[in-house]
Amino acid sequence: VGSPKPGHAHVLAEDETLERIRRTLGGGIGAPRLTDDAAVVAVPDGGPVIVSVDSVVEGVHVDLAVCSASDVGWKALMGALSDLAAMGARPLGALVALCVPESAGTGTMTLEVMEGAAEAARAAGCPVVGGDVSSGAVLVASVTVLGTADGGAPVLRSGARAGDVVLVTGPCGASAAGLRLLRAGSTSAVAAGTGAAYRRPVARLSQGVLARQAGAHAMIDVSDGLALDLHRLADASGIGFVLHSVPVADGATEDEALGGGEDYELVLTMGESEVENFGQRCVEAGAPRPLPIGVVQADPAVRLLRDGELPRLGWQHRLG
Amino acid sequence: VGSPKPGHAHVLAEDETLERIRRTLGGGIGAPRLTDDAAVVAVPDGGPVIVSVDSVVEGVHVDLAVCSASDVGWKALMGALSDLAAMGARPLGALVALCVPESAGTGTMTLEVMEGAAEAARAAGCPVVGGDVSSGAVLVASVTVLGTADGGAPVLRSGARAGDVVLVTGPCGASAAGLRLLRAGSTSAVAAGTGAAYRRPVARLSQGVLARQAGAHAMIDVSDGLALDLHRLADASGIGFVLHSVPVADGATEDEALGGGEDYELVLTMGESEVENFGQRCVEAGAPRPLPIGVVQADPAVRLLRDGELPRLGWQHRLG
Repeated sequence: VGSPKPGHAHVLAEDETLERIRRTLGGGIGAPRLTDDAAVVAVPDGGPVIVSVDSVVEGVHVDLAVCSASDVGWKALMGALSDLAAMGARPLGALVALCVPESAGTGTMTLEVMEGAAEAARAAGCPVVGGDVSSGAVLVASVTVLGTADGGAPVLRSGARAGDVVLVTGPCGASAAGLRLLRAGSTSAVAAGTGAAYRRPVARLSQGVLARQAGAHAMIDVSDGLALDLHRLADASGIGFVLHSVPVADGATEDEALGGGEDYELVLTMGESEVENFGQRCVEAGAPRPLPIGVVQADPAVRLLRDGELPRLGWQHRLG
Repeated sequence: VGSPKPGHAHVLAEDETLERIRRTLGGGIGAPRLTDDAAVVAVPDGGPVIVSVDSVVEGVHVDLAVCSASDVGWKALMGALSDLAAMGARPLGALVALCVPESAGTGTMTLEVMEGAAEAARAAGCPVVGGDVSSGAVLVASVTVLGTADGGAPVLRSGARAGDVVLVTGPCGASAAGLRLLRAGSTSAVAAGTGAAYRRPVARLSQGVLARQAGAHAMIDVSDGLALDLHRLADASGIGFVLHSVPVADGATEDEALGGGEDYELVLTMGESEVENFGQRCVEAGAPRPLPIGVVQADPAVRLLRDGELPRLGWQHRLG
């Protein structure tokens, strides 16, 4: 756990490289917003648009031995939508840019990926409004999504306050467990369930909107691992945390829950007085009640799981 | 001319595959807009956002033997911006998704591509608001741009009317000529000039906005070749055309002007009475006066250059 897992996991640039990119892009054209899950773009005569891009690369994020081309389309679309969920936004539309290997069946693969993307789009109520197809050495699906907070303020990573409750919308680790069991050739019921979590993850869009409406102070999606993503939220907010529990999905290990990523559960913080209301609204919306897992600490150096330090487990892409 | 030119030219899916993708995506989630250069997304309480995605793939659209990594970033950003120009929109923001080969200097290449994208963004007044970096077998830069028509109606491909004048914002073929001369190792002044057109093309954003304001009926950018892109505009509008001239860039051939692509000039049609006003506004804005090159015909079967049929020259990507 903690080492890169080729074939698995959502990938962003390594945090350090991202910081250098931020500096590269920062000169002279206004402050680019590369610090949250999605960017906020002002629109004349209208509310801002919340926008994010996410790529799935064959051999890096997906293993085509255990995943179909249409799964790749689904995963790419849901990965991008999860960034909107983490801002408390609902989707307005998606664009799908594909790079498909030049080989027999290129047109077939293109259509299969697009079908998977269309299925995810229907499931999430997000129209696919545009796209682009090129050839290339490996399959790459880059999805851009546009969303809105309907006049509300998007929830950032940076708003957590000391004393906040840390919540997660559900148990983690199912996607990593699914990949492990699929690769091992397991045909058990657990493999089927976790395999679906790996191949067809679902962005927590309604919980994201409900968290914003319930006054969440900070939020992030678990794309790279519960531990790493919570550390990122803490870094952005300048706070620490003590976790008292780690909800582990059926069939997964605690290491997979902490470091597996791609579960797309949301981690958020809010005042203790709002937690019951938020939980109730989730249940009324047909979603599971979010789980309290810890408390935000004023000291940013405090990053504890039970009695020990919480390592920055999770997917960090090798760059540089 | 007319055959695919690996290493050169902007690429979209082959028109036929795009039609099949449209059908795949069309089921049940509203009518996706995959028929114009960019898509139009409605935003609550605001004007629509115009959005497009464009990818540059190493070995398919760019030849890294004659093009630096920062050129790739520039080209990807300008290619996407050109789609906004073709709708008469101005840019609000861009997202850059990179896939960078896993090899020595991955971090360096990432920063170089991002630097080129940032330079193009500054030149066009378009902030880079987000991005994503992954590893992969070849360099892929996918850029999504968001824009606005400031309350005006975006100019589509489909509005051309019989009797309209066909205009192009400048001579074509410089990019194709530049690639040819760079590959031949030429160090002439012509190679330097056309090489810059290949490596650092510029989207005609101001001319696009002025064309919309001047009442252009239909518009498209010359990304895949003057001939092919004009045929596409004619297909979408259900009209024909007679071209009386082909403006050829210095150092280029007429075949390169017709079939080279990636010049990012705009081809548009408007009523004859608007042409002088549009030309004057371009000159006042410091842009060259657009060149009348033909007349729109009511019969969609008429597709003539001077006395002969205009072939569908231009880049068509091999798919399927």
